[in-house]
Amino acid sequence: MQIAILLYDRFTALDAVGPYEILGRTPGAETVFVAERAGLVRNDNQGSLGLAADRTLGEVTRPDIVVVPGGPGQTEQMDNPAVLDWLRAVDATTTWTTSVCTGSLLLGAAGLLDGRRATSHWLALDHLATFGARPTGERVVFDGKYVTAAGVSSGIDMGLALLGRIAGDERAQAVQLLTEYDPQPPYDAGSPDKAPAHLVEQFRAASRFGSADRT
Amino acid sequence: MQIAILLYDRFTALDAVGPYEILGRTPGAETVFVAERAGLVRNDNQGSLGLAADRTLGEVTRPDIVVVPGGPGQTEQMDNPAVLDWLRAVDATTTWTTSVCTGSLLLGAAGLLDGRRATSHWLALDHLATFGARPTGERVVFDGKYVTAAGVSSGIDMGLALLGRIAGDERAQAVQLLTEYDPQPPYDAGSPDKAPAHLVEQFRAASRFGSADRT
Repeated sequence: MQIAILLYDRFTALDAVGPYEILGRTPGAETVFVAERAGLVRNDNQGSLGLAADRTLGEVTRPDIVVVPGGPGQTEQMDNPAVLDWLRAVDATTTWTTSVCTGSLLLGAAGLLDGRRATSHWLALDHLATFGARPTGERVVFDGKYVTAAGVSSGIDMGLALLGRIAGDERAQAVQLLTEYDPQPPYDAGSPDKAPAHLVEQFRAASRFGSADRT
Repeated sequence: MQIAILLYDRFTALDAVGPYEILGRTPGAETVFVAERAGLVRNDNQGSLGLAADRTLGEVTRPDIVVVPGGPGQTEQMDNPAVLDWLRAVDATTTWTTSVCTGSLLLGAAGLLDGRRATSHWLALDHLATFGARPTGERVVFDGKYVTAAGVSSGIDMGLALLGRIAGDERAQAVQLLTEYDPQPPYDAGSPDKAPAHLVEQFRAASRFGSADRT
């Protein structure tokens, strides 16, 4: 089984590494980081993190699972035919096509979420409808073979849920235990329903997805 | 403020990237990945993930915060004077010296945890006592400027707790909201107290830290 994780300039590191750390422990899986060009791909925080794309898009033609992370750089990929064509091509034979955060907008732009329930980073959620998807506020959404997760850290939850489907509950529990995923956040501000309202409004106002439709 | 994240061969990716994603959003912070040699450092899963160490140890002499991830490769670093000497040297001027997972064993081997409360991956926890530390089962442990976190994913919780101390609760809540850290694991098996007992025993029996002292 091959798991391909897409990288592109200014991706969000945890979007990619969260599901990687979980799904990469699928028995028998080979995990590859893939990008338009092989080599270091820099992230969204002044490029302070560089992750190696060991394969080009052209070298990964039949992954069983594809994982598309999000990040500010997603905007530039929305009309990059190399990436969108690759997503459409590999989706034809994947067992699971997945995304974290605004990665779902890339799946949407590739035409893969039309009519499907899906999620995204809370700031981008409404934008999914542009691509015919039906946005939901759930943290991890399964619709057929399409699995989308909410913002950044949610890829860990998605990874465990998907690993359970692929390898069984016991394997997923074993990976949860080995990664000691027993979350104890010191605050309870991880969603727009729970965070202080002024922070939510502040980020909506500054969002690249606009706030006009959130009245 | 400079945050230095140590890398070494066969580190665990999420140990490093979890706290990076949170602490890297500290206002005014410069985050650098550092290793004995600059260049790609490969992780513990057949090296399928390569993270760039942009600086050598010699180039990072006065970080304000140091983060030491864990992973199977930690064993080889336990008697690597280049790494241990660097930890001792930078610790002399850090504001915070931190670890995730078995990274605390490296802090211990450097002599930095003597007499201190500390934690580690649950499989390595007892081993901390070898270095004069007092192991605790807590997920994130503050003892003075030393902050240690439990296994792999716990670095996210540590990052938020530390960010709160550094930049205030509101900034930490903002980062929790932006990373949508509202964890909803599909299983409740993330600690040895909660996971199926046979999995706990299986991993203890196979652990490189041994199980003889756990009776």
